[in-house]
Parts: sequence; C-alpha cells; structure tokens
Amino acid sequence: MSSEFGTTLKTSVFGESHGPAIGVVLQGLPAGEAVDLDALNAFLARRRPGQGPMTTRRNETDEPEFLAGLKDGRTTGFPLSAIIRNKDQHSNDYDNLRTNPRPSHADYTAFVKYGASRDMRGGGHFSGRLTAPLCIAGGICLQMLERRGIFIGAHLKSVADVEDDAFPLEPTKELFAEVQGRNPAVLNEAAGEKMKNAIEAARLDADSVGAVIECAVIGLPAGLGSPMFDGIENQLAKALFGIPAVKGLEFGSGFAGTKLRGSENNDPFTVSDGVIKTTTNNSGGCNGGIANGMPVVFRAAFKPTASIGKPQQTVNLETMEETELIVKGRHDPCVAVRAVPVVEAVTALVLTDLLLTEGKF
Amino acid sequence: MSSEFGTTLKTSVFGESHGPAIGVVLQGLPAGEAVDLDALNAFLARRRPGQGPMTTRRNETDEPEFLAGLKDGRTTGFPLSAIIRNKDQHSNDYDNLRTNPRPSHADYTAFVKYGASRDMRGGGHFSGRLTAPLCIAGGICLQMLERRGIFIGAHLKSVADVEDDAFPLEPTKELFAEVQGRNPAVLNEAAGEKMKNAIEAARLDADSVGAVIECAVIGLPAGLGSPMFDGIENQLAKALFGIPAVKGLEFGSGFAGTKLRGSENNDPFTVSDGVIKTTTNNSGGCNGGIANGMPVVFRAAFKPTASIGKPQQTVNLETMEETELIVKGRHDPCVAVRAVPVVEAVTALVLTDLLLTEGKF
Amino acid sequence: MSSEFGTTLKTSVFGESHGPAIGVVLQGLPAGEAVDLDALNAFLARRRPGQGPMTTRRNETDEPEFLAGLKDGRTTGFPLSAIIRNKDQHSNDYDNLRTNPRPSHADYTAFVKYGASRDMRGGGHFSGRLTAPLCIAGGICLQMLERRGIFIGAHLKSVADVEDDAFPLEPTKELFAEVQGRNPAVLNEAAGEKMKNAIEAARLDADSVGAVIECAVIGLPAGLGSPMFDGIENQLAKALFGIPAVKGLEFGSGFAGTKLRGSENNDPFTVSDGVIKTTTNNSGGCNGGIANGMPVVFRAAFKPTASIGKPQQTVNLETMEETELIVKGRHDPCVAVRAVPVVEAVTALVLTDLLLTEGKF
Amino acid sequence: MSSEFGTTLKTSVFGESHGPAIGVVLQGLPAGEAVDLDALNAFLARRRPGQGPMTTRRNETDEPEFLAGLKDGRTTGFPLSAIIRNKDQHSNDYDNLRTNPRPSHADYTAFVKYGASRDMRGGGHFSGRLTAPLCIAGGICLQMLERRGIFIGAHLKSVADVEDDAFPLEPTKELFAEVQGRNPAVLNEAAGEKMKNAIEAARLDADSVGAVIECAVIGLPAGLGSPMFDGIENQLAKALFGIPAVKGLEFGSGFAGTKLRGSENNDPFTVSDGVIKTTTNNSGGCNGGIANGMPVVFRAAFKPTASIGKPQQTVNLETMEETELIVKGRHDPCVAVRAVPVVEAVTALVLTDLLLTEGKF
Repeated sequence: MSSEFGTTLKTSVFGESHGPAIGVVLQGLPAGEAVDLDALNAFLARRRPGQGPMTTRRNETDEPEFLAGLKDGRTTGFPLSAIIRNKDQHSNDYDNLRTNPRPSHADYTAFVKYGASRDMRGGGHFSGRLTAPLCIAGGICLQMLERRGIFIGAHLKSVADVEDDAFPLEPTKELFAEVQGRNPAVLNEAAGEKMKNAIEAARLDADSVGAVIECAVIGLPAGLGSPMFDGIENQLAKALFGIPAVKGLEFGSGFAGTKLRGSENNDPFTVSDGVIKTTTNNSGGCNGGIANGMPVVFRAAFKPTASIGKPQQTVNLETMEETELIVKGRHDPCVAVRAVPVVEAVTALVLTDLLLTEGKF
Repeated sequence: MSSEFGTTLKTSVFGESHGPAIGVVLQGLPAGEAVDLDALNAFLARRRPGQGPMTTRRNETDEPEFLAGLKDGRTTGFPLSAIIRNKDQHSNDYDNLRTNPRPSHADYTAFVKYGASRDMRGGGHFSGRLTAPLCIAGGICLQMLERRGIFIGAHLKSVADVEDDAFPLEPTKELFAEVQGRNPAVLNEAAGEKMKNAIEAARLDADSVGAVIECAVIGLPAGLGSPMFDGIENQLAKALFGIPAVKGLEFGSGFAGTKLRGSENNDPFTVSDGVIKTTTNNSGGCNGGIANGMPVVFRAAFKPTASIGKPQQTVNLETMEETELIVKGRHDPCVAVRAVPVVEAVTALVLTDLLLTEGKF
Repeated sequence: MSSEFGTTLKTSVFGESHGPAIGVVLQGLPAGEAVDLDALNAFLARRRPGQGPMTTRRNETDEPEFLAGLKDGRTTGFPLSAIIRNKDQHSNDYDNLRTNPRPSHADYTAFVKYGASRDMRGGGHFSGRLTAPLCIAGGICLQMLERRGIFIGAHLKSVADVEDDAFPLEPTKELFAEVQGRNPAVLNEAAGEKMKNAIEAARLDADSVGAVIECAVIGLPAGLGSPMFDGIENQLAKALFGIPAVKGLEFGSGFAGTKLRGSENNDPFTVSDGVIKTTTNNSGGCNGGIANGMPVVFRAAFKPTASIGKPQQTVNLETMEETELIVKGRHDPCVAVRAVPVVEAVTALVLTDLLLTEGKF
Repeated sequence: MSSEFGTTLKTSVFGESHGPAIGVVLQGLPAGEAVDLDALNAFLARRRPGQGPMTTRRNETDEPEFLAGLKDGRTTGFPLSAIIRNKDQHSNDYDNLRTNPRPSHADYTAFVKYGASRDMRGGGHFSGRLTAPLCIAGGICLQMLERRGIFIGAHLKSVADVEDDAFPLEPTKELFAEVQGRNPAVLNEAAGEKMKNAIEAARLDADSVGAVIECAVIGLPAGLGSPMFDGIENQLAKALFGIPAVKGLEFGSGFAGTKLRGSENNDPFTVSDGVIKTTTNNSGGCNGGIANGMPVVFRAAFKPTASIGKPQQTVNLETMEETELIVKGRHDPCVAVRAVPVVEAVTALVLTDLLLTEGKF
C-alpha cells in the first residue's frame, strides 16, 4: 500500500519529517509544460512554516531541488522528481513519544503497524511536513490548469466557531487571488481577525483548534468524471483524506443538504448566455460523479491539531500503564491555516489526472 | 474510467436500469469461502424495492443468478459473477427526460458526456438499482468478514430533521442485528416512527427528504490501512461516494470536531483487559489512515432524492429554453432508507480488499 | 489478483468451462461506438470449436448475449457486458483429473492454489474456452480501431516444423483479410496444407503440436507508448501471456536478432513520401517502448496442447504415487489454429486501452 | 503512463542520463527488513560501468544515497527512496543526435512523443543508466527473498553465436553464487572466454553484439501467481520488457517447445522426498500462470546495442533528408553483459510484489 495516487498522472510522495529529505515523483506529466519557478516558490511560501504566531516555529526554507523531468523551465515528459532537504530538526523533542503515544496522532497505529523499525521522529511519514512535496507537485499542475482556464481557490470557511463567508455562486479567479493574498486566507477580513484571535487563544492555552476549508474549482469542462467509482467526488475524496487531519468532506450542500427537501436542494436549470447553468449549486458542480459545468465546490473538515502542550492521558507501550503525556516539539495550533494551499494542490493533482485520463487535457 | 474499485479484490459493476440485466464481477476473491445463499437473500431483501410507502413501487425480486466463481456453495477462487435480470420496467415514464433533464440528477451530465447513445431510461447506469449488485458482492464479503470476527452495522442517524441516537462507544454484533431487524433501521424506535412520518409527509407533497447514515465496524485489527492515500478513510471514501446520492462523509467527530479544541477532541488512551483502547472515539477508529483497534465509525450524507413529482424548472436540451418538468416514474422519497445495507455492503468490500491487500485476511 | 487487464479500458473475464456461463465486462469503452454484430459474429466464428479435424469436437454456438452497455447497435458509454451460456459439456470426462493432474496443465497448480473448492471440469477458468469472451471484447475494439485506420492481422508463422512466409515489411489490410479468409490462417497456402497434415498426424497419434503466431499492426500513430513499463511491448506482453499456452513472445527480430551485429539489426531511417520510415523492421515497430510508425510486429510461441490422449506419467494427489494418465475429453491437437483471432483480439484490447490512456483515440 | 510497475510493491523510477540525478521510490515495502549496504553495493558493482573492455568507459561510482524509508539499516515501512547523482557526463557527444536520430534507438520516438522539450542527452530517461535505480530496489528485494529461501540467478545464455550451457534442472544457490562471481556471468568458463572475444571483435569493428540472458528462481512457493493476466509470466513480462534492449522473452522450452509434440514437451509428474516435482521443466516452473514448485526459468533476448560507431543511415529531422550518422559517446558493445544483475533485480521486484499481493510473503 502506498503514498501514491492517480491513474495516468501518478503522485508518489516519500520522506520522513526527520529523515534526510522529503520528496515527490510525478509519473505521467505531459512534455513541454512550462514551470514558472518563481510562481511555484510563491505558492510554496503560502504553506511554509515559521511565519508567525499561527504556525509552528520550525523554520524550513522548503526550496525544492529538481532531480529529473524538468529542463530549461519545461517538463521533459519523463518522470519529474523534486526533493527538499530537511534541516531544522529537533529530534530530541520526540524521544518520549516512542513509548508514550500522543492521543489521536499516528504514534500508536505506527507502533502496531511497523513495530520497532518505524521512524516517528517529528511524526515521521505522517508529518504535516509531507504536504510540502504535495504542494510542489500540485503547484506545477495549478500552473498547467490555469493555462487551460481552470482555476482553483480555497479559503478557511471556519476556524473553531468563527465563520467566514461562503464562496459566491460563481467565484472568479480574481477573487481567488485576493483571498490567497490574505493570511489567513478568508473572504471576510473581519472573520480572519477573529480566527487569528481564536488560534492565539488556543496557543496560549497550549491547545489547538479545528477548521473547515472550502475549495472551489472554476473552468472545469462539463462531462468530466465517470459514474460510480471514478467520479470527481470519488477521486477528490480518495486524495483529500490523505492530507493529515482531514476527517470529513462534503460537496455542495453536503450534510446541511440532508435537512432539506428535494424541492429545496435540487438545482434548477437555466440558460445564461447560451450556456446551461443552475441557479443554485447544492450539487457542488457534480451530478452522478460528473462535472455539470458549475463550480466544483467542497469543504474539508480539519480536526484540531492532535499535538498539544496540555497534559494528556496516554498509555506507556512498554509498561502498559496509563501515564500523563506532555508533548514537546513545535506544532501549529491550527493546521488548517497552512493547509489551504495543500487543498488547492491536491485538488489540482486529482483534476489534472482526471483530465489526462479522460483525454480532455 | 470505470465502475470498479479495489486493489486485489476488484468489484466491477455493470448494467442499466432498463437494460437486460445488472450485475457484478468480483475478481480476487479467495477460494473455499462458504456463501450462505439464504443469508445473502435475506441481506438483499433489506435493499429490495416495493416494500411499502417509504420506497419506490417498482417491484423486482432481485434474486441473483450466479454465472461463475461459485460451486456447491463455495467460492472457487476464480472470478465470481452474478446478475439480476431486469423485469418490472416502465420505460415510457422516462421519455420526456431525454430532452428535459431532471435537476440535480445525472440526466444532463450524461447528455454532455455520452451524447445521443446514452441509455438513461430509469436512470441508466446511474440508477439506485445498481446498488443491488453491490449488495450481492458486499453480502458475500460480510459473511467472510463475520467468520473472522469483523462485523459491520449501519443505521439511519437522521432523516430530514429527525435524529436517531448515535452508536455507543463500542457497539456489538447483537446491537447491529437488532437494528437491522427494524424498518427503518434505527437504534431508537420512536425516532424511527418520526422518520416514517417525515418521509410520508414528503411523499404526499410529491417531494423527498435527505438523511444521514451512520456505520460502524467492529473487530477490525489495529494496524490495518496505510498512510496518506491508501488509508482506511481514503479507501472507504473513494467507494462510498459511488453510492448514488452520497454528498458527504465524515469519520469520528468529523465536522462537529472542527468546533472542538484538541484537548476535547483527542481520544485519551487507556488499558482495558490488557488491550489499549481510547475512552472516546472522536477519531472514528483511524489515526493516520490506520485502524487503532476502536470501532471504525463514519457518517454518510444522502441528499434528498432528486427525482420528485413537484414541478421543477429545467431546460429543454433541443430548444435551449427553460421549461417546467414534472417527473413521472416511481421513486423513493428517501433513498437512504434502502441504502443502509448498501453502505454496509460497500464497507465490507473495501475492508475485505484492504485486509487481502495487506496480507491480513 | 485478477483475470483483468487495462488502465482506462479494463477487460475483466469470468467463467469456468463447465459453469453456467462465461463472459466479459469492458469498463471504460467510449460512448457512441457502432458495433456491427454480424461482423462480430463472423470474427467469433474464426475461433469457434467444432469446425473440422484441426479442432476439438466440442460444439458451442458461442453467440454472445449482451447484458449491458450496448443499445441500438452502439455503445452507451456505460460498462459493457456480454456472456455466452455453456451448453455442450461432458463433465464426466474430467473426473479422474481431479486426483490425477495432467502434466503441463494447470490441474496441479489449481489444486495447490485453490484446494478442494476449485472447479477444474473442462479446465475450469484456465480453459481455452475463456478466450471466447476475449474475442467478443477484442472484436468490438477491432471495429473501433479499423474506423480509425488501424488494422491488426495475425497468421500461423509455424506449426511444428512447418514454416509459413513472414509478413512483408508493410502488410496491408487487404493482405490481412486474405489471410483471415483461410483455414488455417497462413500467407502461403502450400504451407497451410503441410500444417494441416502435421496436425492430423499428431491427432492420429493422440498427440499434439506447437506453433508460432505472428501478428502485425498497421496504422498505429508514431509516439504511442511510454518508456520503461508502460510501453507497447510491456502492455502487449502482460496481456498476451494471458492467452492459454503462450510461453514466448518476441518483437521484430527478437531472439534471432541476438545473433546479429548492431550494424545488421539496426533499422536505417529513410524518407518515403515525406514520412520517416525504416528500411528494415527488426525493431518490430517500437523503440524505447514507443511506436515508431512502422508496423508493430511480434510472434507468440504456443506450446503443444498439454491435454493429449497418449498415456502420460502423473502422480495421484491422494496416494502420492506415480500413476499412468490417459486424458479423455475433446481437445484441439494444435490450440494455435483457433488462437489466431484471439491474438488479434487481445492486441486490439491492449492498443485501444493505450490509445485511450494516452489521449490519442 | 509511467516508469512504474507493481501492485502492492510499486517501483517508480526517475531520472535522465545527464540530469542531476537518477533514482527510485519503492512504495509498499514491509517494515523492519534489514538492508545490508555492503552486500547491496557489491550487487550494484556487478552492473557498474567502467570495468574493462566489455563495457562503456563512462565511470560512475553509483553509490546510492538513501533519502527515506531506511533507518539504522532497516526499512521503516514508509516509502523508500534512493538516488544516484550523475557525474561523469559528456553531453557534447550527443549534440548531433538531436536532429539525427540513431537507428533503432529511442531518439526518433522521443522526438515524436515529447517534441522539443525532451532531454535525450545520453539517452535521457531511456538510458541503460536507469537500470541502476532498478538494481538498488531489486537488490533490497533480493536480500528479503533470500531470507525466505528464495534465490534468483542469471547468466549469459548466449552472446552472438556463442552458447553457454543451460541451467541444470534444479540449480542451487551455490551455483548462482559461482556464476555471479564470474565476468562475464556464465556457467561454462570456456564459453565465457569465447563471448569476450566476440564482444572485443565487435568493439574493434565499432559494432555491437546481441545476447540472451537466462534466469532461474528457486524456492518459490507452488501456488504463487494467478490465472490469465496476473500470472507469474504476465507480471515478469511486463517488467522485463522495461529493461532497455529486451526484445524477446520465453519461459521453459519457449519457442523451441513449439517444435515439439505434447508428449515430448509435457513435464511428467514424479514424487521426490514426498514432494511433487516434474522430471523435465519445459513449463519453466509455471502452469496456468501459477508456480508449480519447480524453478521458474526464462530467457530474455537482448538486441545488439543500437549505439554503434559504424556509419549508419539516418534522416535529419530538420531537413528531412537522409544523412550518414556516426555515433560518438561511450557505449557497451554488448549491453547484456551488465544486464545480468538487472534481470535478477527486476525479477526480485516482480516476485516480491506478487508474494506480498497474494499474502504469501
């Protein structure tokens, strides 16, 4: 089983938080695609740690080194590989976690699955740090999609109990750019300030908060996706649940839609400038797994960061006795803040794969 | 792109609602597994239409015919195939839908994707009827899992605004059996009565209601699943979004967990009879994509049935003019009622595949 | 593990020789493709048994019944499924094989792998009869390819020590049609007569003979295929070794080319009517796994039929003692005679999948 | 489409001959497997260039750098990645090949497929150099298999018209070790001397020779592999045709077996020390795609090196005129000499994947 997804465009991620390097291989990328490294680095900067009180103080420059598949600023058509060397590691912070697993983290399941040979320093391969290679790969695909008129934007829909506005029925690329220029990435700046406060309050309590990220895709051709198991929802779901801390996903009206009647939840068809559209988008842009031409819209639930400074109850794996755990190390009080570009990146990878696989790229 | 999922156990579904037959092929089933056909038919009966006011009046016996892979009540180890002949079809009911697509149904996306050759009578390959072959395949896996001490049970967590109780921290197979004996499948029978009323009210309004199905898996070995993209959540998500009308999925505390602090959402470890457990299960039994030994618990959001009798606004695909649509045909006012065993079946297929793929079956 | 292959077009085969039916599911077929059933049946007739002394006397009409995916003579875009009912079975002929496995047949490996539950009557799922569903699926793809100017033809390159001519440097579709009109399928009719005699001689000896089938593909676009593991050679090899009795495969000059020097084996480039070609085709139309525009040419080695009437030494699986086996049942003295269309069918399936996957269909 | 193969153990290769690095990612490796780096480097040394007149003079130390998945000499269970930096590159030697493609090399097909962005210096991603990462990955699997009693050995069965002896009916690991200690790897040292002479003669003529490599696997459990498309032959074939210059593959008696009668080619069963064996191995250890307990034996045909110093006819891609090409650069006059460990490595990767996938590792 593998840290890889995709049918014709395969994204294969490797690395441990405190190993020599983390990286990605992209198999199946078309040849001749321009990669703007400055734009890519600007995209990666949105995910990078060490940028203020909302994020971990681990400081990594995260500059990708390309090993293959890129020459003179264009993809060669051969497998692309990029790595990031790990630098700012404090492995000692993780010594006690080897016997005392953090609640709701992968420490215990890794112990059961991999035994003594696991390398869980810094979270090992489960670390949020592994989203950096996803962003390299996804950042390249975002550029490829944009050249084809497809744009992806995400924002923090909520943090703790603070709600941002929802995307409008038809968001624009200009709106995406505006949101991406903010920290945190929100539509409503007042909500953003309240989110910062909620995160700071949790941090001061040695605690963490959860969040919901909303993402929209515009410009996707109607007809993309397939019924049953290779639909847009299936493919996105498989990949998005791979982002650490994601515990829920809904398209369109999602869970709230289950409280509506069909006559309220159904999206009436209309014609606008000769194009068939819907007057609402409770379907989130997909019917029967297939894009209907409206924006694809979904929300992912990010649980509160499992690694918190507050004392917690755990079990010592050697003595099999309950004990109190205080997690050291540097952790984001709200992982979702930096996960906004990760959601965009993974979405770009999934949709590029789907477009290529269905011969529509 | 395909109506198939699975790595070593592949479930391949075929058929159209009004074609000659619907069916399934299971590639990779182990040899020598007993299949109790009476138990399988009892399982299929839970999904069958024509059982009262809550479901469509289309009447199909849905008895599977096995074409391959089963001999003398045991799997041969070769590909298994079973089909169900379609009988009670009223294709004329669907004539006007060819030009006038139903809002929030796949009529329009099928038109865009497949063009004139599509067969959308009765919903074609998108019909809820295609869940019957999923139940045949999943019903066989449920029997295989039960022999290994793994049990799966689902119930209607909510219908419209009526809430059932949640599963307890550690549900038992006896509880599952009890719930499965009820119609609708609920923990709290009073809630079940209210759900019936809500569904009947919608039906009388020529309308429909949505629902949430909660599913739990007990007995799964800790350590099952893999990080990032082949975790339990990823695999279940990919398949569950293939059930018609599913628009959301959450594990453990899911979206509600995003409102909690880490100190509230984390599951403290404890020891019970020498086994490591957690005192809460906000993780839904998975950390880092890997089973932690607690029940795997998730909820799937089913939108209200798109096919409703009420007049709706659509667009005529030939004239490109807005028009009013009145859907004929026979439709469930709440698809989730009959989807409870479908969720169990798909879950069984995914987990059997995962157990086989990881050499743990 | 599965009786299925393909990336975007998946061919899934099921059935046992003496079970209720054999069949195929094709996932990923485009919509709107015309299927000429008369032409398909004519293609299937080339593989059908009971056609004279060269083939088994088992008599099956092998008329496919389409269950899904085809309507009004066109593919719907949904999964296509077709089955053939088994009729003329003599299961008693196989009673002694359950304990006394036939040398070089799958009886023994099936016993080890599947144990008591296996159904090996008539060869079970290993039977050459399973090539009928492959021909249904491949026959449909052959029609689709022909409409795009891609033609596939095969012939018996040798039977026992009788050699047919080789295909010319650039065979034509007219040549393919001519060869396909002959029984056996050969270029040189005199060689065909000698082959018949060799086969008849073996049959009279209650023995069998091997053969080599050569296949050529014309009209394939240069640039199809990918380096390393998804090249034309890799994909064809994976599928062709699935045809019962295939034990070898070579492209272009193949094994004979290993006796040549590079200066003799290399194909010099030339220009013909503005198109780059090669003056020889020792590469078999592929360089680095990618089509170069010349015909793709390969040869598959078919071992002599394992089931022969002559007494053979085997081991009784119950007593674990050596014993003499006399195989009853009806068997082709040369399986390759009827395998010619099977090679064409499998080649069509592989190349259609490759064209679809690379967005070149 | 991708430079990757495998179902549960995925081998993903990347890199260009004159790019920054070549490397491999192994997804799905079990945790806790010891990796003896000295033994691995000794294995890699058998493939390394610059070792005498039989091989290219390009000198690379080829020491792997592990980036992930290995800690304290054991696999962590996370994806493993290793790279080799490219050093001794003479890119100028390849300038003229950009417009003047080498006959029977991938220069022309890469031009058609990838266009101007391709990086074909040194053969790009098609270079034999890419077999180094395959040997890192396969070398690790060879160690894992040996601990389970499974051994793989290959030798040069023929070079030009010089024939080595064939493996005996049941080769031993001691025999494998003996052969692997020779250069070239042969059973019969006199044949090895003649091979050296044939290679040297070709080199002096600025020409090249082809060869056949025979490989045997002992200790594989009977019952491994699956019918039709996931058999041992299918899986090995898909991967082995990925080794540059392989143009043919045969199992057991292969093409020669097509000249035999069934009574000669069938392998009679016998009992030896309570174990069922066969007195001959014309099946190459597989029946119906499934291991029968005898050694798996196959032969791969390696064409003569396409890059030769002799003048050859090509076409200038800009002027579309025929022209004479003289290939510079440093090339093996017989690529198969160094491909012996590559065949062993790829075989180890395929069989480890198959054992893992079928739950038999």
